[in-house]
Amino acid sequence: MKKTTLSKATLGRLPMYLRYIRSQSDERISASEMARVLKLGEVLVRKDMNCISDQGRPKIGYPRQELLANLEEILGSRDCVPVVVVGAGKLGLALMRYKGFQDFGLRIIAGFDSDVQKVDASHEECPVLPVGRLERFCRENGVRVGVIAVPEAAAQSACDALIASGVTSIWNFAPCQLTTPDGVAVQNENLALSLAHLCLGERGGRGARDENVS
Amino acid sequence: MKKTTLSKATLGRLPMYLRYIRSQSDERISASEMARVLKLGEVLVRKDMNCISDQGRPKIGYPRQELLANLEEILGSRDCVPVVVVGAGKLGLALMRYKGFQDFGLRIIAGFDSDVQKVDASHEECPVLPVGRLERFCRENGVRVGVIAVPEAAAQSACDALIASGVTSIWNFAPCQLTTPDGVAVQNENLALSLAHLCLGERGGRGARDENVS
Repeated sequence: MKKTTLSKATLGRLPMYLRYIRSQSDERISASEMARVLKLGEVLVRKDMNCISDQGRPKIGYPRQELLANLEEILGSRDCVPVVVVGAGKLGLALMRYKGFQDFGLRIIAGFDSDVQKVDASHEECPVLPVGRLERFCRENGVRVGVIAVPEAAAQSACDALIASGVTSIWNFAPCQLTTPDGVAVQNENLALSLAHLCLGERGGRGARDENVS
Repeated sequence: MKKTTLSKATLGRLPMYLRYIRSQSDERISASEMARVLKLGEVLVRKDMNCISDQGRPKIGYPRQELLANLEEILGSRDCVPVVVVGAGKLGLALMRYKGFQDFGLRIIAGFDSDVQKVDASHEECPVLPVGRLERFCRENGVRVGVIAVPEAAAQSACDALIASGVTSIWNFAPCQLTTPDGVAVQNENLALSLAHLCLGERGGRGARDENVS
């Protein structure tokens, strides 16, 4: 497999490619045919495919088995990454029940909350547990990825608890900068920003409306 | 004001710049001092400032009043854009209660749901109303921006209802491609993708872990 870094946009299209390639039986996959079926630009599809395989040949296509193996490895189709969410408020619960993670080989396996009212072990696939059980749960389940969905004031202590539990990748929805040691990756998510970028057009032609955003 | 298109990343930093500039009293704003206080790279801050103002002068800085006026115009600080959400499930409610929109001059003023159990007019700032009232509400309140937070099967009809109500910018959380007429901007949001990109590193060094993501 090529060792290129995948852009977020390319990554977002991979589940679609994987579904298409799984539906095919020919040993060779044609990028132009795939582009046509998926209603994507041919140049874009070739660019994406070149991140996944260096076995493409003009007029012959890409070897189906190699594409399949590489996509399944990247998307973790055979080996889900377990994820926990700290904070079982509306956002935390929305994330815990969101179906889209499995496309990327991610599985939210538990939520944690300091409010005993929110604890709910009845949901088999993804229970909400007391935050005091976070560390043991993460160690026992090999969890390295955590989501912070608590209010700003509680975010740093949630972050510290995740790191103490062995988590090395943190997705932070709280509107604040977290302090983390070296070796911990933090992705800050600002839910409002995508909408704000889309809406720049509503204020006079800047931003998203000038681009093809769909 | 310069008529440059703002990137999403630049837009995301503007509320921070606005807070800083409001806190200052000097007539001139120094980009290097602002970069230092906000812990950002100086080159980055200068690049962002040049999208906001063309009045920067070496060793003198940017005129505070002009920056302030331009930022407030872009961020809609004086003139909020009203937004509606269709779908008052966990995700819809999480968005309706999310505080971050006001930084960008956006205000979610109502949610709509076809399930009468979810209707709740008691929340003064952002009630949940029956979907049958969508069109009249949007017309009366000049709503041009709508969020789709319904399941995939209901997304196209939610989209059609928003467009019939005069909405021209749609932020879609349902995992499907919407069909829209010309003149309607659609931004598809995949909540899972940011986490997936962050987690590429957990599978062997691709993607987010190779970049500075914090």
